Amino acid sequence: MALIVHKYGGTSMGSTERIRSVAQRVAKWVRAGHQLVVVPSAMSGETNRLLGLAKELMPDATLANSEAALRELDAVAATGEQVSVGLLALALQAQGIPAVSYGGWQVPVATDSAYTKARIASIDDQRVRADLAAGKVVVITGFQGIDPQGNVTTLGRGGSDTSAVAVAAALKADECLIYTDVDGVYTTDPRIVPEARRLSTISFEEMLEMASLGSKVLQIRSVEFAGKYKVPVRVLSSFTPWDIPIAEEASSGTLITFEEDEKMEQAVVAGIAFNRDEAKISVIGVPDRPGIAHQILGPVADANIDIDVIIQNVSHEGRTDFSFTVHRNDYARTMNVLETQVIPSTGAAKLIGDTKICKVSIVGIGMRSHVGVASKMFRTLSEEGINIQMITTSEIKTSVVIDEKYMELAVRALHKAFGLDAGAVVAD
Amino acid sequence: MALIVHKYGGTSMGSTERIRSVAQRVAKWVRAGHQLVVVPSAMSGETNRLLGLAKELMPDATLANSEAALRELDAVAATGEQVSVGLLALALQAQGIPAVSYGGWQVPVATDSAYTKARIASIDDQRVRADLAAGKVVVITGFQGIDPQGNVTTLGRGGSDTSAVAVAAALKADECLIYTDVDGVYTTDPRIVPEARRLSTISFEEMLEMASLGSKVLQIRSVEFAGKYKVPVRVLSSFTPWDIPIAEEASSGTLITFEEDEKMEQAVVAGIAFNRDEAKISVIGVPDRPGIAHQILGPVADANIDIDVIIQNVSHEGRTDFSFTVHRNDYARTMNVLETQVIPSTGAAKLIGDTKICKVSIVGIGMRSHVGVASKMFRTLSEEGINIQMITTSEIKTSVVIDEKYMELAVRALHKAFGLDAGAVVAD
Repeated sequence: MALIVHKYGGTSMGSTERIRSVAQRVAKWVRAGHQLVVVPSAMSGETNRLLGLAKELMPDATLANSEAALRELDAVAATGEQVSVGLLALALQAQGIPAVSYGGWQVPVATDSAYTKARIASIDDQRVRADLAAGKVVVITGFQGIDPQGNVTTLGRGGSDTSAVAVAAALKADECLIYTDVDGVYTTDPRIVPEARRLSTISFEEMLEMASLGSKVLQIRSVEFAGKYKVPVRVLSSFTPWDIPIAEEASSGTLITFEEDEKMEQAVVAGIAFNRDEAKISVIGVPDRPGIAHQILGPVADANIDIDVIIQNVSHEGRTDFSFTVHRNDYARTMNVLETQVIPSTGAAKLIGDTKICKVSIVGIGMRSHVGVASKMFRTLSEEGINIQMITTSEIKTSVVIDEKYMELAVRALHKAFGLDAGAVVAD
Repeated sequence: MALIVHKYGGTSMGSTERIRSVAQRVAKWVRAGHQLVVVPSAMSGETNRLLGLAKELMPDATLANSEAALRELDAVAATGEQVSVGLLALALQAQGIPAVSYGGWQVPVATDSAYTKARIASIDDQRVRADLAAGKVVVITGFQGIDPQGNVTTLGRGGSDTSAVAVAAALKADECLIYTDVDGVYTTDPRIVPEARRLSTISFEEMLEMASLGSKVLQIRSVEFAGKYKVPVRVLSSFTPWDIPIAEEASSGTLITFEEDEKMEQAVVAGIAFNRDEAKISVIGVPDRPGIAHQILGPVADANIDIDVIIQNVSHEGRTDFSFTVHRNDYARTMNVLETQVIPSTGAAKLIGDTKICKVSIVGIGMRSHVGVASKMFRTLSEEGINIQMITTSEIKTSVVIDEKYMELAVRALHKAFGLDAGAVVAD
């Protein structure tokens, strides 16, 4: 007997018919002898409906700047999951499975008071453990908690993933199963590389890099949480029939692990991530003196613009070039900040902007102990005639910025070069 | 400065536009210097939508017999009001009025554990008082509370009226204003008697009799609550424009009072109530011996059938006739119980049933101290040629059962005879 946490997204909870399927799937696990805690999202569309009503009564700008208003927004938005848990508990009972639902405040799931983006502080496991011991399935609202003053808070979009992982951590669950629209984590996007393979395991560090680079499988905070508390998380498809054999279901999808076992060592590179939402800006001919980076990037940060890759070249004759990337939506605003504030204050020669770039990354925990991985990446791109504009590296990731038009080519070439194609022999 | 509780029904909360009107009305009261607590219902249709979802997952019969299922049903149904309070608080804030919402569990509104029909045990006023002192409008969910184990409970249909009165009682509010679809309590149904007048005041005992007799203005439990805690309750229209002068609004509708002041003494009869949902059954020729009433009515009560008027005639030759009324929907079932169980066990001669009857009542606290009121009722009916089939009386009510076809005639004649017609001089 294992203690398992299931998380179901809004699509899986989208109608009473689908809720019944979820209940049948959970019932299958219970009948196989497991203890189950289930964290469902709101029925699809419901959170948007609720937020829409709130926004009809108060404009976005006012809402965002009023603590009191955000408190009410959270109280309203949280009801979506409260409906889900009650309905799922009923559906389980209708299957003959004893079940009980709890709102975040009932468990309680304690959070800070940062409305609409609260963070979980602790989860009381007493009530849940008592119910499990009494043979019940416990259904807990995702996305929400209660702050020290007894106010309802929400964790922000995608927060139900984080709730599920946090519940699994608090209960020291054997595994947290995230049922989602995709059937696992892939070596890269199969729409670009048809040979992309589903990974049966991925380390949580790799998952962090893959998630933040655009593999939108899991909310990144949930992965951080899983890493911090060493919760084994499995991402798997909610579209498989509920009645497939449990052994098959339990080994499907992708398991996010924390132990660097031999199997994981085999693959130096786990996957190829990419991102075409960025724009590159170069500030040419800035005086190379201490504090220049802050002088350039300070005003950009003050304008609340996130900066990703940053490169500073070696200097020539006391002058250097400084390049960085921002989200493409922030490009015009960034250029404006630079022109009006940075050029005058630094005496830089000129600005060069480029919105037709993309970022391609190789991600792999094996890179830590394998030399030559980055140079193999550069060689592969060179062989395809792709010019590298910027490079950044971390322990388990190497990213290059290249011309956007080469993105698919670069991803395919790297996917093949690092032996990720389905059926390929791993070449080191 | 007064402390006022406002209650708004589902129609008033039916859209964001209407919620904005409610907020404007509440804001008007706040700007006039009052402290406001508001208890809104769920948006119209919402409670039915939620219960509908639950019933798609579990059949009615199973639901009704499962404590665990009723618990989930309440948790789901309660979200309707949780959305309302958050939206109304936002709408108030958008008007520049500080406001905060609470679910029943946050106040808390303590109830027993009778899911779907819980009763309020106590309301903690600490949090609400602190908010009021801080200059906030407090918006509290109607219809729900929390039981001693921390489970969400609902009070049953119409429970928001009871919530509002209970909140007003706990806070010792100066007045509880129930905004509803009608503009007050009338001497009788204006659809039957065009001359019916709105009563500016009515005693709570009279209101109890009027409510239970079919003047569906207020949920009867809320009236009992008002009587128990002496909460001044005013029923008034939610359809008046929100910006009418506050003095006009504050004196509109009907005030339910607890002091028998002079004004109230003037009217012996406050109103004429009627009910055409009943059926009459007579058990003829039953042996007149001790215990016979129980022998007849016991099996009916055991079948969970409510009995209203009961009459036992004086006996002739050791035999008597026994008549009573039940809800018309229960008629067939009652006749079956009598035929299969009561006739054989009592040796009664026969049954006579009549579904074409109605009950007409005169209600008035002044009847206590005025003789001849009942006989005036009988004389009036006699003058119209209406035969009285059954009579029952209480301290403040006299009811007669008559042929259904005379109902309108009887109500109009009595309304006139007791001086209730608009513009009439009160005749004693």
